Amino acid sequence: MSWNSLNKHWEELSFPSFTAGATEEEQQAQSKKALKKQQKEAEKAAKKAEKQAKMASEQQSAEEDDFAKDRYGVSAMVQSQQKLDRELVRVQDLTPEKADQLIWLRARVHTSRAKGKQCFLVLRQQQFNVQALVAVGDRASKQMVKFAANITKESIVDVEAIVRKVEQKIESCSQQDVELHVERIFVISQAEPRLPLQLEDAVRPDGEGEEEGRATVNQDTRLDNRVIDLRTTTSQAVFRLQSGVCQLFRDTLTKKGFVEIQTPKIISAASEGGANVFTVSYFKTSAFLAQSPQLYKQMCICADFDKVFCVGPVFRAEDSNTHRHLTEFVGLDIEMAFNYHYHEVIDSITDTMVQIFKGLRDNFQTEIQTVNKQFPSEPFKFLEPTLRLEYTEAVAMLREAGVEMGDEDDLSTPNEKLLGRLVKEKYDTDFYVLDKYPLAVRPFYTMPDPSNPKYSNSYDMFMRGEEILSGAQRVHDAQLLTERAIHHQIDLEKIKAYIDSFRYGAPPHGGGGIGLERVCMLYLGLHNVRQTSMFPRDPKRLTP
Amino acid sequence: MSWNSLNKHWEELSFPSFTAGATEEEQQAQSKKALKKQQKEAEKAAKKAEKQAKMASEQQSAEEDDFAKDRYGVSAMVQSQQKLDRELVRVQDLTPEKADQLIWLRARVHTSRAKGKQCFLVLRQQQFNVQALVAVGDRASKQMVKFAANITKESIVDVEAIVRKVEQKIESCSQQDVELHVERIFVISQAEPRLPLQLEDAVRPDGEGEEEGRATVNQDTRLDNRVIDLRTTTSQAVFRLQSGVCQLFRDTLTKKGFVEIQTPKIISAASEGGANVFTVSYFKTSAFLAQSPQLYKQMCICADFDKVFCVGPVFRAEDSNTHRHLTEFVGLDIEMAFNYHYHEVIDSITDTMVQIFKGLRDNFQTEIQTVNKQFPSEPFKFLEPTLRLEYTEAVAMLREAGVEMGDEDDLSTPNEKLLGRLVKEKYDTDFYVLDKYPLAVRPFYTMPDPSNPKYSNSYDMFMRGEEILSGAQRVHDAQLLTERAIHHQIDLEKIKAYIDSFRYGAPPHGGGGIGLERVCMLYLGLHNVRQTSMFPRDPKRLTP
Repeated sequence: MSWNSLNKHWEELSFPSFTAGATEEEQQAQSKKALKKQQKEAEKAAKKAEKQAKMASEQQSAEEDDFAKDRYGVSAMVQSQQKLDRELVRVQDLTPEKADQLIWLRARVHTSRAKGKQCFLVLRQQQFNVQALVAVGDRASKQMVKFAANITKESIVDVEAIVRKVEQKIESCSQQDVELHVERIFVISQAEPRLPLQLEDAVRPDGEGEEEGRATVNQDTRLDNRVIDLRTTTSQAVFRLQSGVCQLFRDTLTKKGFVEIQTPKIISAASEGGANVFTVSYFKTSAFLAQSPQLYKQMCICADFDKVFCVGPVFRAEDSNTHRHLTEFVGLDIEMAFNYHYHEVIDSITDTMVQIFKGLRDNFQTEIQTVNKQFPSEPFKFLEPTLRLEYTEAVAMLREAGVEMGDEDDLSTPNEKLLGRLVKEKYDTDFYVLDKYPLAVRPFYTMPDPSNPKYSNSYDMFMRGEEILSGAQRVHDAQLLTERAIHHQIDLEKIKAYIDSFRYGAPPHGGGGIGLERVCMLYLGLHNVRQTSMFPRDPKRLTP
Repeated sequence: MSWNSLNKHWEELSFPSFTAGATEEEQQAQSKKALKKQQKEAEKAAKKAEKQAKMASEQQSAEEDDFAKDRYGVSAMVQSQQKLDRELVRVQDLTPEKADQLIWLRARVHTSRAKGKQCFLVLRQQQFNVQALVAVGDRASKQMVKFAANITKESIVDVEAIVRKVEQKIESCSQQDVELHVERIFVISQAEPRLPLQLEDAVRPDGEGEEEGRATVNQDTRLDNRVIDLRTTTSQAVFRLQSGVCQLFRDTLTKKGFVEIQTPKIISAASEGGANVFTVSYFKTSAFLAQSPQLYKQMCICADFDKVFCVGPVFRAEDSNTHRHLTEFVGLDIEMAFNYHYHEVIDSITDTMVQIFKGLRDNFQTEIQTVNKQFPSEPFKFLEPTLRLEYTEAVAMLREAGVEMGDEDDLSTPNEKLLGRLVKEKYDTDFYVLDKYPLAVRPFYTMPDPSNPKYSNSYDMFMRGEEILSGAQRVHDAQLLTERAIHHQIDLEKIKAYIDSFRYGAPPHGGGGIGLERVCMLYLGLHNVRQTSMFPRDPKRLTP
């Protein structure tokens, strides 16, 4: 594999079906403008190909007298031409135990620095990296060092190298005790020379950048170039931790006897009165995107699944441009039948949250530390059993702190945050349950408090003073549910199937929905939910 | 708790906020017609309540001389009035070891049969049931037996009873060695007397019903009344097995080092040319529902996540009314970087499928047997390693069987099924991979075969002759991808973000998407994908 291979590659790609010609019929179908554009693109691609082929051929003749010419180059695109029997070592496994072994490795060029007859590369795989040296000698020619020095950052290379122990720790790399002495290097995928953002800028703590006059990367640039932003150690850590949250959530509930269900996202009627719902064209009619799987979870309870959970997208057509709202997020949803009191449900959910917090603390410490380097925060604190406050107590605490509010007023976002601080001061926990919300501020299917008609059997859960879960005992009696729907002026025709679900025997039940992105954001002490959504959707962002 | 409690219940529910009055402003907002309807509903509800209260009060006076009057009745709705310290035993735990113990139990009335001074109930919890006897004696009066006999089927009851060993096995129940001698019985949730379908009809094998002139339940009746249909032993088994498929899929991949990702479902551009895609109103613009998470999975590979999977809804606006098409289904998606050959990907996926098949065979035998009782089928067969055929071999097999088709023709559904039978005869497997599809029948991002431009590095996987997965090596080179898109006449502007993902170094990679409902249907030998979708969506069905 060398520049020769590159030529061969271009030959392979020029077979007829790859040209941009279109049949007459197809041409007629396109608008003239579109066609012109397509042709232009095709010409551009052809020109580029020609240029690269020419460069490769020039390079080739210059290399005629290079003793190392077969030891480097740009490989033909991996198109599954052959099954190579070659083991590739992982960067994280490069330790002194591998010293003096000749190994193959595939990694990205993180940085490169030429220095006389040597070129130092840092090779990266996810959050791990290692130093590699290409030096003129037996194995490498000066042309090979030059070639290595010219490989663009973020390109992917295959390297054959000897692992060598180093005397002084390499502080800048995750593998500090060894470096690689490169004997062969081939480019597997070439990155364009200009990156839209620099990885080192993208992991720089906010303050540091400003103080030292160095660049940081703003949120929109990150999100516009998410494929590169996700390569940073911080992003890798965030989304590996997020994967962990889902796994801990499901494993805990499966152990408790919950069954996973799949609920439809396209629904015929807006579940909660029609506000904030996205409309979908559905063949000759229209439909909506589910704002929550709740009605379906409840049907499953009425269908004897007893305890269910689901993990899936939730859609809110709210024009809220805040740090914590998304138009599409991932809901971790729970619903369960209980025997006599909905606190059985609260206990199940809080225990699940505690198992998640413990699992993260015990198994994701590396990820937490990595994120903390860029975004410092206090470790997340929680109590066992979880603190449960009643709404009236919270109102009293806020009033004591100078807030004016009525008994049945909902909590504003600033008041939620203030309450979080007051609770932290008093109880030393970042996680708690607020129980017994005023009936007036909750949805129609919320069970009223039997002892005080102004309140309800409902609750929210908070992390670092922000809501992550909303839940309640649900009304499981068709007649009371009808009355509550009428009181909320909901069109009964539209929720007929829902109400009918409770006519054939329904156990008392309750549940709640957790926002995955919020849990990750607040656990890590981050400040924007877009940092914990891979491809966030908000009123202004639909791409990538 | 007795009829007294019922009265109390109605009193509680009549506090002011529960009436259907609306303020003047709210009334103006409603249309007159809607208002009238609401009022009518409210009147109806009030009348019904009055009638029930009257009945309860009459009953009450009749019970004055009933020595057992506190031992039965309709309980007040469970509204979390109290935290009862009462353990409820599970039906499946009712074994001879519990003989002569006094226990409490909550279950549904599956059937009831009065016989002189006795009433036999079958009490059900999911797939388990037990016989219960209410007989006139020390503990039960004749009024109590009458009450028990009148409890509507599917109502939920709390029962206090002594567990008794029986001399002759009760063949009709899952708990064959014991029965319950009931001492107290309270209705927790009353089912309406007329059920839209009978559970015993809903589990009757198709042929049996016709032969003996007994009813079976057609698909639409089932789906219209899904909450009841899901209570059958067959449905309980199907969806517990489905939950198992998801868990086995994730656990296997997690062990292999895959990371779970969450991909957006609302997207700005139709990914594959714009056909068969649902349109969503998105604030002042419009968007689409993702037909697959594939583009996002690939971006994650370009973002160094190396191996990823996701489980989530997939939307297809196809007007196909067949046994195997849904407009919304659950995709189990895989994408991974590979080293030199896409068969590394095929091997990962087939091993994952084999682990799922083994897990189902070993841990879900009860569920499989339960479904087989209603829908008999041959056990699912698979080979290790998985059989892999090339497309040209398949075409040859079909031609030998008399099918006329060109080398590059796609497989029709009947030919897929025929091929499945031929493969089963020749290789004795229900699962195999068909590799190297003609390039012309695959999407633009499919990697061409390096040795034959008419074919591609792509594959489908089949269970019992039906496709469950489609996958390929993807084009990871921005330039080749551009050429392929132009060839397919795709507007480059619309897929710019996608193509740009490959400009900054992209590893060779491949993957595939599995349809969850199809896997469950075909593993169990069922014949309609609506049987394995809890709330199926097709061009004609959007409810419940």
